[in-house]
Amino acid sequence: MAEKRPPAVLGSATIATIAREVGVSSATVSKVLNGRSDVAAGTRARVEASLERNRYRRRARRSSGAGQVDLMFHEFGSDWALEIIRGVEAVCTPREVNVVLSQLGGGRRPPQSWVDSVIARRPLGVLLVMCNLTDQQRQQLRRQSIPVVVIDTDSASVASVPAVGSNNWNGGLLATRHLLELGHRRIAMISGPRDVLCARARTAGFRCAHEELGVPIDAELIRHGNFHVDAGYTHGIELLSRPDRPTAIFAGSDLQALGVLRAARQLGLDVPDDLSVVGYDNLPVSAWIGPALTTVNQPLRDMAGTATRMLLDLARGNALPTSRIDLVAELVIRESTASPPRP
Amino acid sequence: MAEKRPPAVLGSATIATIAREVGVSSATVSKVLNGRSDVAAGTRARVEASLERNRYRRRARRSSGAGQVDLMFHEFGSDWALEIIRGVEAVCTPREVNVVLSQLGGGRRPPQSWVDSVIARRPLGVLLVMCNLTDQQRQQLRRQSIPVVVIDTDSASVASVPAVGSNNWNGGLLATRHLLELGHRRIAMISGPRDVLCARARTAGFRCAHEELGVPIDAELIRHGNFHVDAGYTHGIELLSRPDRPTAIFAGSDLQALGVLRAARQLGLDVPDDLSVVGYDNLPVSAWIGPALTTVNQPLRDMAGTATRMLLDLARGNALPTSRIDLVAELVIRESTASPPRP
Repeated sequence: MAEKRPPAVLGSATIATIAREVGVSSATVSKVLNGRSDVAAGTRARVEASLERNRYRRRARRSSGAGQVDLMFHEFGSDWALEIIRGVEAVCTPREVNVVLSQLGGGRRPPQSWVDSVIARRPLGVLLVMCNLTDQQRQQLRRQSIPVVVIDTDSASVASVPAVGSNNWNGGLLATRHLLELGHRRIAMISGPRDVLCARARTAGFRCAHEELGVPIDAELIRHGNFHVDAGYTHGIELLSRPDRPTAIFAGSDLQALGVLRAARQLGLDVPDDLSVVGYDNLPVSAWIGPALTTVNQPLRDMAGTATRMLLDLARGNALPTSRIDLVAELVIRESTASPPRP
Repeated sequence: MAEKRPPAVLGSATIATIAREVGVSSATVSKVLNGRSDVAAGTRARVEASLERNRYRRRARRSSGAGQVDLMFHEFGSDWALEIIRGVEAVCTPREVNVVLSQLGGGRRPPQSWVDSVIARRPLGVLLVMCNLTDQQRQQLRRQSIPVVVIDTDSASVASVPAVGSNNWNGGLLATRHLLELGHRRIAMISGPRDVLCARARTAGFRCAHEELGVPIDAELIRHGNFHVDAGYTHGIELLSRPDRPTAIFAGSDLQALGVLRAARQLGLDVPDDLSVVGYDNLPVSAWIGPALTTVNQPLRDMAGTATRMLLDLARGNALPTSRIDLVAELVIRESTASPPRP
């Protein structure tokens, strides 16, 4: 559907243009742009609409210092978050770019006050982990020429936002193939929460590996839970207490796998002689424990580094060759998997 | 020794005073204050000396936003760093103070370029972990009224810098007393590096607990290494391969203890039936593994939170009631300790 007005050239509108169109002062337009609260809601909405219609973009600021990057987490979950921080720092430190760290304490939507503070500080860009902005917040940052890249651990990003993830489906496939190749035929899966896409992708990979070999799946053996140790422990105790207990468990995270190891230990089952366990993530801890964990390497550090480089490219005004990158997930075989016990 | 000139009143000197005294322009003094590099070394030195002599202090800036806090790490070592980040965030997030994160990749002295960037950005203050500033860098920040607090995990801070630590000597005492009370008489200690004060304090606590009971220490059983898994594993294999192997090992960190658990597992020794193991730090992982680790709780999160509150107090211009706080270390008894095996 063609618009009636001639399409605005990106960035050709000025604050004065917007002010004239809406019939307010330039100061009012500036206030809206800067996320100030002292503008009437109706006026703000009309200014916002005009900014969007005219595709207003603030010129990227070239600050005197090397600048900052904002890194916003859903929450700091164990070593997992630290791997991402390390990946971001590895790119920022040599460039003398500072990393500003925030977290939502488990929430998924950064509050407007944070977006306002970003607009006031004007960092080079924003990296998001397990959280996302509203459409309006995204527009606000776009207008300020503050780029956003998602470090996409949950495959949940929208197409319009550049993102770096990893192939979760493939990870699920590799882990399950490994267990099937060892001879396991009753394999349980403890997946992440049902509403987290990466968990569904991994489960789909688990199913596909079974289908490849024509091995049926017992639906009773597929569980969902959070990614923490407690879910692995609880499901582990339940699964391993069954008379027809599985000979292998594929956990949705290394922390869940730690919970499964605890459950096995408590029930007197040896890993890997009585039970094989595969984790997901390849956190440093997975190599430290005994038995060292066979796990899928989710390249968190590389994902974070790649996302940071994309962000700094965008901040320099470069276009990205591609706005979505999935890094490869690989299986790391250690001590927690072996052939199933003889029946 | 009395100085000849009348003592300057703190903060009474202005840039103009300094410029007059040194015989340079005010612009040059400003450049030195702002850490700019385009000042001849000799001039810089004379200006620096005058600033120090006059006890020059820039007035604390009241920025429009809530401000930032700089958090500088020696390195991001595992969960350990994340506990500190969590403690800092817990204080900063509700106050809408942003945390700027940096790390030295293992170094101990922040580079001058970082100090210059701090001076340019003027955060509310700086938190240091396992690293310290030179006297000159400290003076530079002091002149800018940017306070510094050390989160002192290694008991190595200088008296003139406010610091929050924990009582490492007491931690070593509690861990060793616990093992002695269980009946152990051949206890090994894997301590941290010899040049790290906290390691020496914990070793002193270990010795004191033995002295209390008149139990002799076999010097062969006291080892030093880095705080990571590999040191625990290497020393663990050596200690446990001895014909007169210890019945208990007190490790200098939870990560070292994980290495000891690996070594024991490899040598076919059961923990705690054949060997008791005590860690240090009480990282989340210590409760997740099997056997769950008996360990000394170094209250990293509380230490970080307390240090952050001190810093924000200083940033508001308040004097601190005390410049050095040591939080209590407590023993957390879990599954990795028991009475020694019958000989």
